[in-house]
Amino acid sequence: MHSIVRAFVLATVTLSAGCAVTTGSQAPLLIASQGSFAVGGKVVGDPDKASLHCDHGVVEYQIPPHARATNLLMWHSASAVAWQRRWDGGEGFQSIFVRRGYPVYLWDGPRVGRGNWGCAETTYIPNARSDQQNFVAWRFGSGYPNWFDGVQFPKDDAEAWNQAMRARYQEFDTIANAQLESDAAAALADRIGPTVALTNSAGGLRALLTALKSDNIKGIVAYENVGWVYPKGEGPNVPEGPFGPVEVPIEEFRKLTRFPIQVVWGDNIEKSATYTARLAESRRFVEIVNEHGGQAEVLLLTDAGLAGNTHLPFADLNNVAVADLLSKFLEDHSLDRR
Amino acid sequence: MHSIVRAFVLATVTLSAGCAVTTGSQAPLLIASQGSFAVGGKVVGDPDKASLHCDHGVVEYQIPPHARATNLLMWHSASAVAWQRRWDGGEGFQSIFVRRGYPVYLWDGPRVGRGNWGCAETTYIPNARSDQQNFVAWRFGSGYPNWFDGVQFPKDDAEAWNQAMRARYQEFDTIANAQLESDAAAALADRIGPTVALTNSAGGLRALLTALKSDNIKGIVAYENVGWVYPKGEGPNVPEGPFGPVEVPIEEFRKLTRFPIQVVWGDNIEKSATYTARLAESRRFVEIVNEHGGQAEVLLLTDAGLAGNTHLPFADLNNVAVADLLSKFLEDHSLDRR
Repeated sequence: MHSIVRAFVLATVTLSAGCAVTTGSQAPLLIASQGSFAVGGKVVGDPDKASLHCDHGVVEYQIPPHARATNLLMWHSASAVAWQRRWDGGEGFQSIFVRRGYPVYLWDGPRVGRGNWGCAETTYIPNARSDQQNFVAWRFGSGYPNWFDGVQFPKDDAEAWNQAMRARYQEFDTIANAQLESDAAAALADRIGPTVALTNSAGGLRALLTALKSDNIKGIVAYENVGWVYPKGEGPNVPEGPFGPVEVPIEEFRKLTRFPIQVVWGDNIEKSATYTARLAESRRFVEIVNEHGGQAEVLLLTDAGLAGNTHLPFADLNNVAVADLLSKFLEDHSLDRR
Repeated sequence: MHSIVRAFVLATVTLSAGCAVTTGSQAPLLIASQGSFAVGGKVVGDPDKASLHCDHGVVEYQIPPHARATNLLMWHSASAVAWQRRWDGGEGFQSIFVRRGYPVYLWDGPRVGRGNWGCAETTYIPNARSDQQNFVAWRFGSGYPNWFDGVQFPKDDAEAWNQAMRARYQEFDTIANAQLESDAAAALADRIGPTVALTNSAGGLRALLTALKSDNIKGIVAYENVGWVYPKGEGPNVPEGPFGPVEVPIEEFRKLTRFPIQVVWGDNIEKSATYTARLAESRRFVEIVNEHGGQAEVLLLTDAGLAGNTHLPFADLNNVAVADLLSKFLEDHSLDRR
């Protein structure tokens, strides 16, 4: 009956053999407390007569016993599910990092997922080409159904494909929405204390904006980030699109130099013109942060000996190895203290 | 920093003193496996060229070690958060029943919350009177801000009010949507095995429809259900509204007689004409199920010695006592076996 449990235990045992850090997956997860709450947002109307609480984000949290002092905030661009499960159903980063002693916060920003009780009217229009666009945008292959050799996805598993294509919900890629989401996330960081934001895709832009609004962002690890913040006059001088660029006064920008930033990229970047340009833009951002005294870096997973990673490395088959690199980053920057 | 943990432990220790069953809240929760997945839904378009996976539900699960054999499916009408936290931030039913050994599945149906990747266009329109309507519909009081005496809500806690008003997301109250949601939930039950559905408000109608579509629904505990299924010709003979009624052939209806159903109501029903009518309709449903050989009952929490419960008893301040009544129901019907 509980075949999920059995399959999971088997899969993780197989995978963790040979990894530097194992997740101890056969032992139960220990959780001192868990729950969820809304944060940020507005109240519109007259609270005595006719009003609406709206535009908050919703977070669910798990805090292990004797937790480390720094929280991990997992910020998706498409669906919280990608932090909760590996493509084959194995443990996602949420469980892996609770096991490793971190308080984990899983985030649905305003108007997204469980936060979709907004202050303004919105319309959802189904995207008739979503599957094929995901395949390319998530770098599963060059064009559906031509998978990259050695891709870290169980490509012969029809259910894994089914799950991946459903790991989406409505999102709003505008700078106005990125500001709305980062307003709520800053309120979250102010409430929960020192936090490292783990982001995917356009989540990274939102975390950078959050760090301008809260001093509790103590690090950003941005998996395949799309969209950047620049000092005024130092950006790429292109019109603002769905992912920026956003330019801010230099005094504001300097806030991004006070904590470590790691931008992580998967494999097969060179087979995509889009991602080749995105990698180049991330190098430019890193250079500018560091010129202003920051501690930013680009990490190519291929340089760390990993192959076949997609746009969502934390959900890939080798996600324990990707997690080990994150553990090292946190340790290197003393963000692992209890 | 982790004031959530401290507040939680204190609150639960205080509350559980004097309860028949304590939640053992000072010990960590033990979880053998957890994760999430999509289930049900359609694929529209041409999967080779231009397609979209959509209209699935999304479930997150937690399975404790040596789990009991029957799953609990928590089906909200407004937001999954209400199963995750008590109004004051204490443990919700999700954590309480993982502690009690049950596999717990938290459900966002198609088009709702994390399932909002639908096959059809939808529009969200903010409800400018939401707060004041919630106050009455959730039976916090007779009319905002006139709280009922002894209500099981921390009415002097501004943050609790803030959290409650944000514990909502877009929902679709039509029979077509209830059918869509129950299609996906039936696929879930077929996948996970024997399941008791715990529902709130219009979630109960959806669970009844699910039981017509899957043999794995082994019980329904419906907190303050709105909307019923009747045998053809035995319904209240009113036009179909957002919550039914739904009439089905008697052979179909008999499926609802094969498992125990408990309809649970909170306090202050008699102070609301709407809820007085809803309670009466639930008694009529119970009578019809039992006339056809079923095992349905109405439970007034006031008859069990509890006072002040709202429309969401599982999130009320005395939710451990409400949980104890659920544990007894599961035990009485041998649904607690390991």
